[in-house]
Amino acid sequence: MDAVPKRIAVQDLRDFCLSLFQKLDFAEEYAKAVTEAMLEGHLRGAHNQGLGRLPIYVKRIELGLINAKPVHRVVRDSGAAAVLDGDHGMGHYAASKAMNMAIQKAEKHGIGAVGVMNSTHFGVAAYYGRLAVDREKIGMVFTNSTALMAALGGAERLIGNNPLSIAVPRPGHAPVLLDMACSNVSYSTIQRAVQEGSQIPSGWGTDKNGVETNDPAAVLDMGMLIPAGVHKGYGLAVMIDILAGVLTGSAFGKDVGHLYKDLKDKQRTGHFLMAIDIDHFIDRKSFFNRLETFIESIKSSPRAPGVEELLLPGERSDRRRQGTLQAGVALPGGIVQQLGELAEKFELKQLAP
Amino acid sequence: MDAVPKRIAVQDLRDFCLSLFQKLDFAEEYAKAVTEAMLEGHLRGAHNQGLGRLPIYVKRIELGLINAKPVHRVVRDSGAAAVLDGDHGMGHYAASKAMNMAIQKAEKHGIGAVGVMNSTHFGVAAYYGRLAVDREKIGMVFTNSTALMAALGGAERLIGNNPLSIAVPRPGHAPVLLDMACSNVSYSTIQRAVQEGSQIPSGWGTDKNGVETNDPAAVLDMGMLIPAGVHKGYGLAVMIDILAGVLTGSAFGKDVGHLYKDLKDKQRTGHFLMAIDIDHFIDRKSFFNRLETFIESIKSSPRAPGVEELLLPGERSDRRRQGTLQAGVALPGGIVQQLGELAEKFELKQLAP
Repeated sequence: MDAVPKRIAVQDLRDFCLSLFQKLDFAEEYAKAVTEAMLEGHLRGAHNQGLGRLPIYVKRIELGLINAKPVHRVVRDSGAAAVLDGDHGMGHYAASKAMNMAIQKAEKHGIGAVGVMNSTHFGVAAYYGRLAVDREKIGMVFTNSTALMAALGGAERLIGNNPLSIAVPRPGHAPVLLDMACSNVSYSTIQRAVQEGSQIPSGWGTDKNGVETNDPAAVLDMGMLIPAGVHKGYGLAVMIDILAGVLTGSAFGKDVGHLYKDLKDKQRTGHFLMAIDIDHFIDRKSFFNRLETFIESIKSSPRAPGVEELLLPGERSDRRRQGTLQAGVALPGGIVQQLGELAEKFELKQLAP
Repeated sequence: MDAVPKRIAVQDLRDFCLSLFQKLDFAEEYAKAVTEAMLEGHLRGAHNQGLGRLPIYVKRIELGLINAKPVHRVVRDSGAAAVLDGDHGMGHYAASKAMNMAIQKAEKHGIGAVGVMNSTHFGVAAYYGRLAVDREKIGMVFTNSTALMAALGGAERLIGNNPLSIAVPRPGHAPVLLDMACSNVSYSTIQRAVQEGSQIPSGWGTDKNGVETNDPAAVLDMGMLIPAGVHKGYGLAVMIDILAGVLTGSAFGKDVGHLYKDLKDKQRTGHFLMAIDIDHFIDRKSFFNRLETFIESIKSSPRAPGVEELLLPGERSDRRRQGTLQAGVALPGGIVQQLGELAEKFELKQLAP
């Protein structure tokens, strides 16, 4: 884990993924969709949402908990709404397909909403928002996730921090892109604090009794993440679980499987994806002009002392993304090592020889 | 302002509103829609969103800034999407109509989304979510509002705290209902702190230079509310403004008019309302059963020390609502006095003789 990060070209990571998925006998479309979604994790600097997950994915596939040959089934489909059964395949694929369905529905009806049941962890929500943006649609993405927060005042991991993403196209520029979870910080931020031996500020986590703590180890020991804005983040997480889990027919609340710790059950993650077709609401050109006016008002707004620049939602991530596309992914040493082991096991070309 | 609150029956408040609107020559449907939406403010305990606003509404109507006889026009309407021009009438009416349109679209297409342009402040977002719930739909409500927050790191009121509401029907019970703004606290919470002469905790507001302050007066003096979850609340507010303002053709950002301070321009508030028809995603009975399972898991979850009960989003508000429906509205003395003046001016029956 302490090895120096290596810069690896995005294309090399892509090739590595694809060659592994070939060994796992993934269909080509499946392999491609999952690979691109995982790469987006690295492009956003969320390496824990990328190839670092391959070992657990392989393990779950071997255990029959992730389906290497999912057969998606459209459970319901009427007008602007549909539900897709992900057949316990990789969530990246099911969510991509669902967003593409939502986009088609939006082109026809103005808005499209597609739920996904029986899915698995899908990586970064922003990726699916970007799929909408690539087609000049507004994308909205909701997913439930492994329970890591308590009910407000609770002392049990009851609900995921249930990420959401909203992405707005901006021709010639990166999208305006919100990608957030409903907790103040992520679980991996707490893990990092333990690794670094540092305390955590108040507002980040509680121990297993629901009592706020500055000790990150107490949070990892069946403690809970604290919702952003307390009752606001809690309320949002509940609503996202109702949309992504209860409404789709998937698991919800504490029944959403844990990717690493639950090696007996399928995850049964649920997603809810929407696309909005701008032309059904306003002339697209006018929308983009108005959006630029809004953005200009933000960028030219007076700044607080010490602030150098005012950023749009997603702008910082996008700069990291552009840098990574050029310079390659600074892959943490721990992940490089894991991928080396996978390469050996599956007789793949080593990523970093 | 210091007078003891009077308990006034909801029906009396309703009658008062309706008789005033009659004097203002409102059409019956218009008067009714606005009245019910305003009463919901009092039922939620948000008295500043109810009849306390009547004096400024009357003033704006007299100035021609709110239209007493709005003619709504459907600007676009295709499939599941539409945009309604509120013709600068009371936002309560336009938003109610838009939600009813969204509900009809949802029944046909599974989901419906209706934007509103050229509207005004619409009171509490929860009211429009409840309109969806009354028809067993899931409702989602977004609105922009007068700029009270800065861009992240900014030193100017640039964007509203842009409330949202998500409401989920629960037959035989109050809906699961999220109603929140994107700031940590409301502007009226800061006003109350000034009235009470108390300091505010960190995280609530900044002075006009964008520097965090504990002095509520500094926030009122062109300072800013701090977003909930900082970049998360900021990002959400931007996205809501894009949906409710930029996409609908209404005002956005700092161009949304101030209800009290800007007596020259129309507000041009924008809303974005969605309804989701459960049956298009899952059998309705199954949804309600699954929802009860989720709710039961929350209600029966272990509690942190000192916590007596775990509440659903909206549950506390609903208890207040039920109490108010029975015991009447505890109308603050300041509002009673304002309504007395209105009664005199318009020769209405006095509310609290």
